[in-house]
Amino acid sequence: MTPPQPKEERPLGTLLAPDILALLDEAPGSVATETEEMHPADLADVAEAIPEERVADLLRALPADRAADVLEYLDEERRARVLEAMSSAQAARLVTEMTPDERADVLDELEAETAEDILAEIPAEARRETERLRAYDPDTAGGLMTTEYVSVPDTMSVAAALAGVRAAARGGRKEAMYAVYLTDERGRLRGVLSLRELLAAPDGAPVTDVAWSEVVSVLDVADREEVARVTANYGLVAVPVVDALGRLVGVVTVDDVIDVIQEEQTEDVQKLGGMEALDEPYMQIGFGAMIRKRGVWLLVLFIGEMATASVMGKFESEIDRAIVLALFIPLIISSGGNSGSQATSLIIRAMALREVGLRDWWRVARREVPTGLVLGAILGTIGFARILAWQSLGWADYTEHYMRVAVAVGAALVGVVTFGSLTGSMLPFALRRLGFDPASASAPFVATLVDVTGIAIYFTVAAILLRGVLL
Amino acid sequence: MTPPQPKEERPLGTLLAPDILALLDEAPGSVATETEEMHPADLADVAEAIPEERVADLLRALPADRAADVLEYLDEERRARVLEAMSSAQAARLVTEMTPDERADVLDELEAETAEDILAEIPAEARRETERLRAYDPDTAGGLMTTEYVSVPDTMSVAAALAGVRAAARGGRKEAMYAVYLTDERGRLRGVLSLRELLAAPDGAPVTDVAWSEVVSVLDVADREEVARVTANYGLVAVPVVDALGRLVGVVTVDDVIDVIQEEQTEDVQKLGGMEALDEPYMQIGFGAMIRKRGVWLLVLFIGEMATASVMGKFESEIDRAIVLALFIPLIISSGGNSGSQATSLIIRAMALREVGLRDWWRVARREVPTGLVLGAILGTIGFARILAWQSLGWADYTEHYMRVAVAVGAALVGVVTFGSLTGSMLPFALRRLGFDPASASAPFVATLVDVTGIAIYFTVAAILLRGVLL
Repeated sequence: MTPPQPKEERPLGTLLAPDILALLDEAPGSVATETEEMHPADLADVAEAIPEERVADLLRALPADRAADVLEYLDEERRARVLEAMSSAQAARLVTEMTPDERADVLDELEAETAEDILAEIPAEARRETERLRAYDPDTAGGLMTTEYVSVPDTMSVAAALAGVRAAARGGRKEAMYAVYLTDERGRLRGVLSLRELLAAPDGAPVTDVAWSEVVSVLDVADREEVARVTANYGLVAVPVVDALGRLVGVVTVDDVIDVIQEEQTEDVQKLGGMEALDEPYMQIGFGAMIRKRGVWLLVLFIGEMATASVMGKFESEIDRAIVLALFIPLIISSGGNSGSQATSLIIRAMALREVGLRDWWRVARREVPTGLVLGAILGTIGFARILAWQSLGWADYTEHYMRVAVAVGAALVGVVTFGSLTGSMLPFALRRLGFDPASASAPFVATLVDVTGIAIYFTVAAILLRGVLL
Repeated sequence: MTPPQPKEERPLGTLLAPDILALLDEAPGSVATETEEMHPADLADVAEAIPEERVADLLRALPADRAADVLEYLDEERRARVLEAMSSAQAARLVTEMTPDERADVLDELEAETAEDILAEIPAEARRETERLRAYDPDTAGGLMTTEYVSVPDTMSVAAALAGVRAAARGGRKEAMYAVYLTDERGRLRGVLSLRELLAAPDGAPVTDVAWSEVVSVLDVADREEVARVTANYGLVAVPVVDALGRLVGVVTVDDVIDVIQEEQTEDVQKLGGMEALDEPYMQIGFGAMIRKRGVWLLVLFIGEMATASVMGKFESEIDRAIVLALFIPLIISSGGNSGSQATSLIIRAMALREVGLRDWWRVARREVPTGLVLGAILGTIGFARILAWQSLGWADYTEHYMRVAVAVGAALVGVVTFGSLTGSMLPFALRRLGFDPASASAPFVATLVDVTGIAIYFTVAAILLRGVLL
């Protein structure tokens, strides 16, 4: 039977929390058996729905390995607070049962001192493994990888390799096994075969006969985005990680890759919205941090946008003589900003998916100029018609020279939308070329660039068309 | 050894294409053995880097199952053109070797008539399977799933199940095997165990003793976003798919889930940029389609933004009397749009990650109002100081009442930024409540809403502060 489908507004954890709280009060000894078939992710949802001070009770009521599984799915903030509230011996017992990569991550989330206290209580071998993993930058393949994988010498037979895999599976190692890696006498990665391929192979054959010798792998210092790209491109469930000498040092599993992809996407969306990435869930980030992350970019954009006041100041006498021109400023500059925002989001995404590289800037520019011209012509025609319509219906009075005003607005729209499309599409290239993240080219950033220029384009066009008439 | 790391500007395909083209010309018979250790994804890169008319030669030079693997990684457009250029018998030979889910996908990409011709040449059993899969909406679990998975009756022993898995693995089935599913006599999903758990289990035990009876699964009609959410939340590598009666009908594998996550993300970024999702790579979409996808939203926004001209028309006499007020319009309204764009992108992403649900709107509003007030106060103070500074430095002349102008601009900024944050954060809730995709709340959409109101707020504040002085 399928479990009840969690409803968006009532996740499973919320539904089960009252039952489990009652059980913890009345018969804590039965919690382990009552919840034994539950997925640890669902138990973690329960642990997020009950009062924080009861989470330790719940974890204590479970066998240590189950409690460790629940911790792996628990929200990071809550997990840190729960572990910090425990004695270091208690916490160490749970942390020891976690997979090596999760163990390193969870210790990184704690206060440095608490982490050291817990680490001191962890068995020596697990401690060394954890320390080795914590030495890697968390944003690299080394920071994502686990050290629990199955490798066999490349001199083995299929039967011996399969026996090794079964022994490892029975040895209580927890990370999933999808593939078996072959290593030479120096520990260098020499081959790979999936568990399916191993099961299908004839027992007597040497593993090298059935394994793939060209192994897709990443360096331990590779950026996590590179790991995600390799995993997605090759459709892998696990990527082996090698050091500079080609030695197998770990494996990144696809569940961690999905987390990376989602985190990177969150960052990209937030940057595109014109702010620093929050790095924390919206509902959990503190007020001060929220103001900082949003305020910095808002301020930068504000200071940039101040130039509009200066540019408009230059045209003050034109505005004075033809107030009617001022009425269309927001309409014109926002159209430039909108077309720029479209172009920017297209190019940022195409770059993230590697559909477009730095050297494609010229091809992109050659697409964006005609696109901008056509889009601008459409908006310009409608803007032109709008002015004539309002004038002839008597809904507005755009002076006796309304026809020239309409032409000026229409022509300015063509120019501003084309300029917006071009600027918006080229900005990610420029940022990348300068070594910045192209995703910093936010919609508001483009709009600000285009606003200033848009005003100048508009008044220049107007000056040409209305010189000697209104101006 | 690790293969050469593909460089961003020179993908592996581009590097190898000349060698493989030469081989195709001089010794086509050796292509299969020369490339036998290459990953099919790398061969697909080669197939994308060589002239399109040579791709069929390359596929013909490979064994049918290898060629099918390459097709699975090939760009969709090119794949469709290559298959359409082949005879239907040739194409059918390759398509038959693909996994059932990829086979259904590739046929959906072809002209209906070509697809029917190819389908007619596929062996009867594979044809029926393909037709069954094609009956599902491609955006559902049924549309993503493969029918090649391993299931055993829940009455079996571990040893018998393992023998079944080995037989299946040797049977040439291609989809990866990560888990074994248990079904009852009616085909209903009753349990799951990973290949690792099966390998670790004692041979004589019944499979039900070692399997998990609470299986995370999705309905065949579930939306693909739901499939992605379940996979990510539970950290799965494959999700079983059941029909309305609870019968196991297929499995969605994580590589397809990653594709879904990336496609959904592309759509979200493009919508956030203020346009319809392209559904095709930027470099491949036709000019007409590009204009349509961008033009529709640009037009909607333009028509909305026209209200700014009307609102400003209402304040024309104020502008006439105090031109200085017009200078700050772009600065003020863009600040509202920027703060709104930040809030919108935060909430859209928090909703996509289910950090925030519909019922949280009030908690969000209560965060956004103080955030907007503080951000507005910061910008307002700087705007105020900027006017005083320019005036006292003699860089601009904001009339003798410059102090009141500065106060009006500062106060309007507080109001507009607060209004922008609130509008931007509430818009995704409103859209979702009305049954639309919250991601349609683009940065330009919010900016347009805020521009119109921003002008009204500004002139109202100015009217109060400057009444009897400038106005």
